[in-house]
Amino acid sequence: SAEMGITGGDLKETQFHNSYNLNFKMSGETDTGLSFGATYRLDADGSSEENQNPVGDNGTVFISGAFGKLTLGDTDGAADWAMQETAMGTSITDEGTTHVGYSGNSLGDGRHDDQVLRYEYAFGDFGVALSVEHDDGNTDDGDDFDPIIGLGGKYKTEFSGVTLGFGLGYQTGEGSVNQLTPIIEGAFDLDRDEVEDALSDTANEFLQATFGSGKQGFDAYGLSVSAGMDNGFSAVLNYSVVDFDDAYDITYYGVGFGYEMGALLLHMNYGVEEYDFGNEFLGFDVDMEDRFDSFGLIANYDLGGGAILAAGYASDVSYRDGDQEQFSLGMSLSF
Amino acid sequence: SAEMGITGGDLKETQFHNSYNLNFKMSGETDTGLSFGATYRLDADGSSEENQNPVGDNGTVFISGAFGKLTLGDTDGAADWAMQETAMGTSITDEGTTHVGYSGNSLGDGRHDDQVLRYEYAFGDFGVALSVEHDDGNTDDGDDFDPIIGLGGKYKTEFSGVTLGFGLGYQTGEGSVNQLTPIIEGAFDLDRDEVEDALSDTANEFLQATFGSGKQGFDAYGLSVSAGMDNGFSAVLNYSVVDFDDAYDITYYGVGFGYEMGALLLHMNYGVEEYDFGNEFLGFDVDMEDRFDSFGLIANYDLGGGAILAAGYASDVSYRDGDQEQFSLGMSLSF
Amino acid sequence: SAEMGITGGDLKETQFHNSYNLNFKMSGETDTGLSFGATYRLDADGSSEENQNPVGDNGTVFISGAFGKLTLGDTDGAADWAMQETAMGTSITDEGTTHVGYSGNSLGDGRHDDQVLRYEYAFGDFGVALSVEHDDGNTDDGDDFDPIIGLGGKYKTEFSGVTLGFGLGYQTGEGSVNQLTPIIEGAFDLDRDEVEDALSDTANEFLQATFGSGKQGFDAYGLSVSAGMDNGFSAVLNYSVVDFDDAYDITYYGVGFGYEMGALLLHMNYGVEEYDFGNEFLGFDVDMEDRFDSFGLIANYDLGGGAILAAGYASDVSYRDGDQEQFSLGMSLSF
Repeated sequence: SAEMGITGGDLKETQFHNSYNLNFKMSGETDTGLSFGATYRLDADGSSEENQNPVGDNGTVFISGAFGKLTLGDTDGAADWAMQETAMGTSITDEGTTHVGYSGNSLGDGRHDDQVLRYEYAFGDFGVALSVEHDDGNTDDGDDFDPIIGLGGKYKTEFSGVTLGFGLGYQTGEGSVNQLTPIIEGAFDLDRDEVEDALSDTANEFLQATFGSGKQGFDAYGLSVSAGMDNGFSAVLNYSVVDFDDAYDITYYGVGFGYEMGALLLHMNYGVEEYDFGNEFLGFDVDMEDRFDSFGLIANYDLGGGAILAAGYASDVSYRDGDQEQFSLGMSLSF
Repeated sequence: SAEMGITGGDLKETQFHNSYNLNFKMSGETDTGLSFGATYRLDADGSSEENQNPVGDNGTVFISGAFGKLTLGDTDGAADWAMQETAMGTSITDEGTTHVGYSGNSLGDGRHDDQVLRYEYAFGDFGVALSVEHDDGNTDDGDDFDPIIGLGGKYKTEFSGVTLGFGLGYQTGEGSVNQLTPIIEGAFDLDRDEVEDALSDTANEFLQATFGSGKQGFDAYGLSVSAGMDNGFSAVLNYSVVDFDDAYDITYYGVGFGYEMGALLLHMNYGVEEYDFGNEFLGFDVDMEDRFDSFGLIANYDLGGGAILAAGYASDVSYRDGDQEQFSLGMSLSF
Repeated sequence: SAEMGITGGDLKETQFHNSYNLNFKMSGETDTGLSFGATYRLDADGSSEENQNPVGDNGTVFISGAFGKLTLGDTDGAADWAMQETAMGTSITDEGTTHVGYSGNSLGDGRHDDQVLRYEYAFGDFGVALSVEHDDGNTDDGDDFDPIIGLGGKYKTEFSGVTLGFGLGYQTGEGSVNQLTPIIEGAFDLDRDEVEDALSDTANEFLQATFGSGKQGFDAYGLSVSAGMDNGFSAVLNYSVVDFDDAYDITYYGVGFGYEMGALLLHMNYGVEEYDFGNEFLGFDVDMEDRFDSFGLIANYDLGGGAILAAGYASDVSYRDGDQEQFSLGMSLSF
């Protein structure tokens, strides 16, 4: 697929944007009828000559049959798999999914080596999945972390002309203090680029005091509810909590609305992420909270044949104080 | 496509050469009959194991219909699009197009982020194009430059058995002092590798004094005339001027001749680039000129099916004093 | 092709493994019936997000006809081409071919720029090949080395129900002291990562004294014999010597056995590499020897359609003292 158009906002000049995704999809079948396959993607962002160099992503290998489906690679954990995100439609620089209050429901995925093994099984309108992401010790984050184990279930039904979907996910494991950068950014009003430096000074000391070794067990829960009506209206609700052992929580609420009429899709989503942590530092009780909320707007017009006219607006794309908006307008092309 | 053969000359040992271009071409059509598509290319040079790693290039996205064609990406500006270059045929290490006196007629393209938006429209034997390359501020070259705007027109006709083509281009915008390296190399007799160092010392000081901020407005004009005869002979003439605001000019003259007989193509082109600048430096009047001229020779024999036997010779491939020749012999394969 | 599964052993935690090979095969035919083509491969290892970035490999260009076949690129030298390796089957992290006592019969290939030109010709059951790998001076290893010239021959026949294959290879040229790292590792009991450091200190001094300039002429010989029986049993024998000018030898013995029954393949190979060098150092006579032997085990079950269940075990994958075993279990998928 490819994109062309313009993008701009508070953090960048209004500028051209073109980008490329080369999707490689491989599939086969064993003599006994098992399906197997693999996916791999090369991404190139055309915003400068250099950025046309390819970056690999989304590699997965899978095998499926009557027993269900087993997938290994850069794929969703079970909770993410079960939950439906609030975003719909597309825009060339992803305003619908990249604002600060938005959550993709990873619930801890990708904290180790981003190599997830997921087993899923469907029966009728129900689906369940189990996932494991292992810390293989290949990253230099000190001694090994516990694996991240995920469990997810979903259910689809129809009720007097309304399609209903429910997703429920749970993940547990260990993560590192480095993943707390958003709250540090918020608490100390730091630019994303300054956080790494800050982390080695006071902020880091503070975090070390607050969270000890930097290794944190966590439990995460998530729920999604979606509804689609014959008249083209649809809505998705998301709720999730990531609860770290030492009194550190991230709570997320999100809602998305869509309206489809013929070739037109209008969408908005709104999300809130609340960070809450409390501990003792240099003899003082510390109780800090921060809250990010923002919304995204998407308008798509389907030209047919894989071409979509796409506009996007995000109200805030940086954890800095104040709102940093972003927009884009262009064409999204699938081949 | 792929190449195999040998290459050598004054600047490298005679050695094997093999290289690969993987072209990805995507296309589709909307419901209303608009055509759209994208191109992307992975290049790999086999001169060493490491160089087999892929480099992305030539990414473009386009949409076309009765309104004309709109292309965004690593593509020609309007002037380059309108003008026909003097080179013909192919050789495995590009001796026809890489000698110092040769110009690809970019007339300023690629000075910003190499992301050009071009609109083109054809009516009968005429074609016109308009292009914009924007400085998106993503490169660290100080404050923003004016965009480069291009305008081009071309015309094809036949006159008593001779096919005639005319191309006319104009581009205007701002460029930086860094693009003047060829003249610095010439003026100070520096190796291309030494120029960056030199630029931070005396040469740079000199340039700063000469050109002020290093930001230079320019106007560029170009003209190409081509003629093809039934007996296999053809010729192309090129003339262009890039005129920077503060008394700095680059003038280019080029000529190319070709002769095709059956599977055989013989080609030679010759080009002259004249650099002329004058200004005040430390109270002295400075008037410097430099001139590069060189030629390229190409012999191709088409074996059919996409295979071409290709020989190339370039008289001078470095701005250093004296001529540094280069040659190659091999096969160019298209699939 | 793609792989999924688990791998582990003495040097790494038991962990997930997924990887991708995208093979590009291009071919064509000239008007006179010559075949030509090219191969190129992008490899991506999924063990972490970063490692999904593509790496280029295996690029070759070839042309073939009644005159034989000419191949240029990342391909086998003539000796490697002629000889059959002892390994059979597959495993996801290559336990059959990566243990320390195993040799892939390169006999010096890849010491320069890994760009080999090979000519091969077949007549009846016989095949011969000639290869050249040139030091193109693009690598910073001092002054130029002599090219590596290879000669290989093979012969296939059948004798009372037994398929027999013979391969014979000879290569001569110059290599650098840097390729002796395995013996340094063995002699000084160094980790592979520590060798580079060591080479710049005592070990290097020692080597310089021992081998002079670090440039060493060598002659290499290799022989392979293979036998396949109707009952599914097969065996391969390998023997090779790489003889450096100044009293430095590497001798390799290898044997592989296979048994195929229906979809099942069982394989084991065993190899011994003996390093022997003697010279004078600080007035003392030095006579050092080292010896690595190890084995690999492979079990494959062919599920059909390109899917193979693959298990592998290697007894020793590091030159360190003692044995460092490695294993893997997974699926190898071809599409």
